[in-house]
Amino acid sequence: MSPFRGSVPFTDAWEHFDVRRADGVATVTFARPDKLNALTFGAYADLRDLLAELPHRGDTRVLVLRGQGRGFCSGGDVDEIIGATLAMEPDDLLAFTRMTGEVVKAMRECPVPIIAAVHGIAAGAGSVLALAADFRILARSARFAFLFTKVGLSGADMGAAYLLPRVVGLGHATKLLMLGDTVDAAEADRYGLVSELVEDAELDTAASALAARLASGPSFGYAQTKALLSRELDMNLSGAIELEAMTQALLMKSADYAEFHAAFTGKRDPQWKGR
Amino acid sequence: MSPFRGSVPFTDAWEHFDVRRADGVATVTFARPDKLNALTFGAYADLRDLLAELPHRGDTRVLVLRGQGRGFCSGGDVDEIIGATLAMEPDDLLAFTRMTGEVVKAMRECPVPIIAAVHGIAAGAGSVLALAADFRILARSARFAFLFTKVGLSGADMGAAYLLPRVVGLGHATKLLMLGDTVDAAEADRYGLVSELVEDAELDTAASALAARLASGPSFGYAQTKALLSRELDMNLSGAIELEAMTQALLMKSADYAEFHAAFTGKRDPQWKGR
Amino acid sequence: MSPFRGSVPFTDAWEHFDVRRADGVATVTFARPDKLNALTFGAYADLRDLLAELPHRGDTRVLVLRGQGRGFCSGGDVDEIIGATLAMEPDDLLAFTRMTGEVVKAMRECPVPIIAAVHGIAAGAGSVLALAADFRILARSARFAFLFTKVGLSGADMGAAYLLPRVVGLGHATKLLMLGDTVDAAEADRYGLVSELVEDAELDTAASALAARLASGPSFGYAQTKALLSRELDMNLSGAIELEAMTQALLMKSADYAEFHAAFTGKRDPQWKGR
Repeated sequence: MSPFRGSVPFTDAWEHFDVRRADGVATVTFARPDKLNALTFGAYADLRDLLAELPHRGDTRVLVLRGQGRGFCSGGDVDEIIGATLAMEPDDLLAFTRMTGEVVKAMRECPVPIIAAVHGIAAGAGSVLALAADFRILARSARFAFLFTKVGLSGADMGAAYLLPRVVGLGHATKLLMLGDTVDAAEADRYGLVSELVEDAELDTAASALAARLASGPSFGYAQTKALLSRELDMNLSGAIELEAMTQALLMKSADYAEFHAAFTGKRDPQWKGR
Repeated sequence: MSPFRGSVPFTDAWEHFDVRRADGVATVTFARPDKLNALTFGAYADLRDLLAELPHRGDTRVLVLRGQGRGFCSGGDVDEIIGATLAMEPDDLLAFTRMTGEVVKAMRECPVPIIAAVHGIAAGAGSVLALAADFRILARSARFAFLFTKVGLSGADMGAAYLLPRVVGLGHATKLLMLGDTVDAAEADRYGLVSELVEDAELDTAASALAARLASGPSFGYAQTKALLSRELDMNLSGAIELEAMTQALLMKSADYAEFHAAFTGKRDPQWKGR
Repeated sequence: MSPFRGSVPFTDAWEHFDVRRADGVATVTFARPDKLNALTFGAYADLRDLLAELPHRGDTRVLVLRGQGRGFCSGGDVDEIIGATLAMEPDDLLAFTRMTGEVVKAMRECPVPIIAAVHGIAAGAGSVLALAADFRILARSARFAFLFTKVGLSGADMGAAYLLPRVVGLGHATKLLMLGDTVDAAEADRYGLVSELVEDAELDTAASALAARLASGPSFGYAQTKALLSRELDMNLSGAIELEAMTQALLMKSADYAEFHAAFTGKRDPQWKGR
């Protein structure tokens, strides 16, 4: 657990998706299969709050997002969200769209690596959640649909217009966000949107293997890799290089760096402490 | 037409290229086929001014750029531009290079989606005009040549050194801009520079189909997708996410968002108003 | 030689790698083949200082980096660097990590184009040196390993977390820097990390051919292409376009621009002066 906790308790029960924890891996399963795991207001709020707690718990070194049933996540529920927002005042609308953006911001700023294990459809907010993960393991059946313009909104939603050009380039991002068409796993792979492409039957195994590897690895090094990848998108060359110099100097005082050298000279595998 | 017009009239006749308007689509055809559609000072000025007027007219929801004859556009005319600039004073040179840059800036900041339909050569300024478009539909015969270093200039011209790394990555951009070599449609596609690759005989049809789709779609959503894709290249994650939240909250008060929900629940196609 | 020299002499002998100069091309060969060209403190210092001198000498229009023996460069030496840093105080550690970052900064800001000719392994700092080059010519045997997390450090080292997402996109960069796994030449090529892929037997020829081409070309134009590609990664669209306008106006007053026009109208090849 983080050494810097005050009065706020951890949350025992997450009502809007399933959460399972084992061996340093937290797995969030979107579990409304009859609705293709469409998100509700509560699901967004729970994602926001879970991501805020995660780094403080000290028992989680990897987060996996996955979907139950036929697909990953079909995005905001047409009835419970689109219908409801039509009746809202501007301040509540902004509170809602800000909450959805906070989820993505928390995903990118969370020091814990996040794996999206995607099969079937990842649409709307579902596609952005996958985009905001660090690793996207895609089953052959996976499909992305950044379909925001098809519901009359901007293709720029939850940070998609920031993230997607930085992952696939401005040309592909324009096509995906402007048109909102569905792309299959092969096309997503060609664009650079896929970390690992597997058969559907292998998706859970592949996600578990990567999660186990990350959970047993040098977590502090991973955290400082993710943090700098995220932050340096917004920094200039000179500042980025100074930040990396500071980071490595700090990590050269870490137990894991000494452990690498001891293991290497001792011709054995390192036992990472994550600090 | 824009509700915010003052005294300035619209331009009736564009002398330096052909302009045709129909069904919300404006088509600019570079029409000096004997010169491979080489650009003149007048053509740059007309592009700059046409792009400034376009958003105010209210009759244009898509802009298509294309070339007549054997190719798209061979860039600045060797006689009429390169020859002429050799005799110019520094202030006039800067006025010229600023004008060419203003064309690209206007293309990126114009709320109307821009399609470049490219066959044959797109060289020099012609390649940058295609690069600055939102969609590049390429015929098999299309070729790009960012040939600026071959005329003794910097490969960074009209924003190419800003845009190209953001479309194809820094490695490919360095190769293309430093060497100035010609790349064919297949190689451009491999780099991520192509939105759609078609046979030459299908180029006009493909461009018309995409133009018609965009012209009949939710224009306000498209405009706010393009605007944010452009602006967020220059924003940090936190600012970008806030901008997207504000944008979506505004669009949730638009007619098109309500229309999507009405059409969806009524099991019919939406009738977009573009507002 | 630069017209702006003071008292500082040029360095005659570089002790930590081989340097050969011919026909405007400086070739640095990492030459500790028994150690897979592992870098020492001295090698980093020499790279930093050589890159600082290079633009002032006036006799170098291209820099080539290559490795002797079985590979390009295996990165920081496990004994001489990792072992030594374990005993260092924080200020010396920071001085070291800053020095390594200064090498990359100097590579990116050096007006001379840099070619990395890579065969066999490019690991750790070796992979970042290749990444910071302008052109990466890869032999089939080439392999990249951004293996920093595997030694307990951050994958963000020497600017890698800044440069790699801008070359291959954030998704591939995350995979490469977080996991530190080895990727072969074909996979690197698929990610956009390769300027030219050749057979091992052709590597020296390909590097020499590109170096000769760059050395005999319009060097001022090349320098101002590289400078703007580097700087505009950190600029917004509007500033970038203004910088390009200023640059081209200046180059339109250069001898090489006039030479192009004279050669073109005279139907002969241009004789570039590089100014």
